[in-house]
Amino acid sequence: MTKVFTRQEILEVIPNIDLITELERGFIAFSEGKAMVPLPGEMFFEELQGEVQIKYGHLENDPYYIVKIASIFPGNITSGLATSNGSMLVFSAKNGQLLAVLLEEGKLTAVRTAVAGAVAAKYLAPKKITCIGIIGTGAQARLQLEYLEKVTDCKDVLVWGRNEAHAKAYAEDMNKKGFNVKVAKNTADIGSSCNLIVTATAAVAPVILDKHIRKGTHITAIGADNSEKNELEPLTLARANLVVTDSLEQSRSSGEVFQTWINGLISDNDVLELGNIIRDKAFQRSAENQITVADLTGAAIQDIQIAKAVYEQLSK
Amino acid sequence: MTKVFTRQEILEVIPNIDLITELERGFIAFSEGKAMVPLPGEMFFEELQGEVQIKYGHLENDPYYIVKIASIFPGNITSGLATSNGSMLVFSAKNGQLLAVLLEEGKLTAVRTAVAGAVAAKYLAPKKITCIGIIGTGAQARLQLEYLEKVTDCKDVLVWGRNEAHAKAYAEDMNKKGFNVKVAKNTADIGSSCNLIVTATAAVAPVILDKHIRKGTHITAIGADNSEKNELEPLTLARANLVVTDSLEQSRSSGEVFQTWINGLISDNDVLELGNIIRDKAFQRSAENQITVADLTGAAIQDIQIAKAVYEQLSK
Repeated sequence: MTKVFTRQEILEVIPNIDLITELERGFIAFSEGKAMVPLPGEMFFEELQGEVQIKYGHLENDPYYIVKIASIFPGNITSGLATSNGSMLVFSAKNGQLLAVLLEEGKLTAVRTAVAGAVAAKYLAPKKITCIGIIGTGAQARLQLEYLEKVTDCKDVLVWGRNEAHAKAYAEDMNKKGFNVKVAKNTADIGSSCNLIVTATAAVAPVILDKHIRKGTHITAIGADNSEKNELEPLTLARANLVVTDSLEQSRSSGEVFQTWINGLISDNDVLELGNIIRDKAFQRSAENQITVADLTGAAIQDIQIAKAVYEQLSK
Repeated sequence: MTKVFTRQEILEVIPNIDLITELERGFIAFSEGKAMVPLPGEMFFEELQGEVQIKYGHLENDPYYIVKIASIFPGNITSGLATSNGSMLVFSAKNGQLLAVLLEEGKLTAVRTAVAGAVAAKYLAPKKITCIGIIGTGAQARLQLEYLEKVTDCKDVLVWGRNEAHAKAYAEDMNKKGFNVKVAKNTADIGSSCNLIVTATAAVAPVILDKHIRKGTHITAIGADNSEKNELEPLTLARANLVVTDSLEQSRSSGEVFQTWINGLISDNDVLELGNIIRDKAFQRSAENQITVADLTGAAIQDIQIAKAVYEQLSK
């Protein structure tokens, strides 16, 4: 019998799962070629600018395969509905039966994206984090900071957003959760004070200039997940000591690596996958003064890992 | 709120839906380019020979988009589970919300395939059907005959299958449903007695030879849905007066049209889509002595049409 779980039931079990370990295992297996993750299916609804993505796949030796259908309908904002939505389906890889429908409403995509940010920081950020810089003030900018708590003790945060009221609200909300967040005047401020920076915007032009990024900084760019969006200058990736992506294949057509590549400033050989650096210490940050960049476009392997972990937790 | 419907609930409403009209509308819109139906997603599980297909799409002006995940796991036969399985999801094309999960277990794929056979016969079979020939004895061979009842009064049937016991069981079962089914000695018998023939097998070599097909015959080939399977000789399609497919795009890589094309005996110009002939009488059978072939590989537009019709019926 197919089980159906609501968003609320799913949210309740998430704190009981070690998602960092689950995603790390997934990234390693993916980079070792042990995951079957075909290219995502896509639909676009011109009139409403609505986007649908179907991500699916299977990890070698897993008893499951996963299908996620996620959508973004920007117009929902006027009707009070969330703009992002999604469901994940867990199937038996032994007989094709639909084991569970996770009515997660896009929440698991948001969480697995934030967890990937924490994984990137765990292996790439400097040992001593002086201040966390967050560029962007939306739901993902909040989740990123919440999950960073699992990999760093630093509570000092500078936030910047185009809309100052949103940045103030961000600071107020996150301070209630035990952080010490101040609103930055501009992203140059963030560059000069912070050595762990997360960009989580929908920008189509750099949100922090290369000249404002100091040596010894790690940046995780979360926002750009297609060929249009762009948060960093190509120069930053070009001069970074380490450039890491979740999926090399996806980076060939989206995100910061893609932007740098079309500017002729980077090649496949200059980029590692998260799975490579988790597995092998030799590929991780090796000096405090290095610049490192993680460009995360969001890989199906993350959906596979979070869906099966949540399903197993719910089935206990 | 997402509604979840069981196989039993779905089966109960099917008789209340005019599926022939629904599919006809879908085929026409599809052939007019009014449907968004990206290429299906696929996964293959080597060890178990398990196949998963994701078909999805949206019809212009529809308030829905549909995603179907279907699977075939041949090994299920040893565990008593059905080898075919599937679920269809109905989403709002206005806001991306998951409206309904149809836990149809592959049944709707089976039914829409049978309905397409009936639609093909409606426009292509001779006016006077003397005897229906069925090649194949499985679930789809049964459903094809059941749905043909909606487009012809002929009850006389000859059936043939590789396994004689299965053919006898077929005759016995279908006779209880009001048909007059006899088991044929071979498919030559079917060719000489029947002028409406349906092939519904998993064959990889022709199941009825061209020399056994008489003028004035319509054949619907249902079984071949990939580049390996094959039920008719290329010669039959080459000499047919009309060759019709559900999807020209799919026919370029699967089914009888594909087999004939790789033998150099047919080109795109020789093949029409079901949507073309439903819309325009000029493309339908124009004489009783013509040979016509419908090669159906199974199109996502059928899934879209049946899923939304079932959802709307269930929501009444």
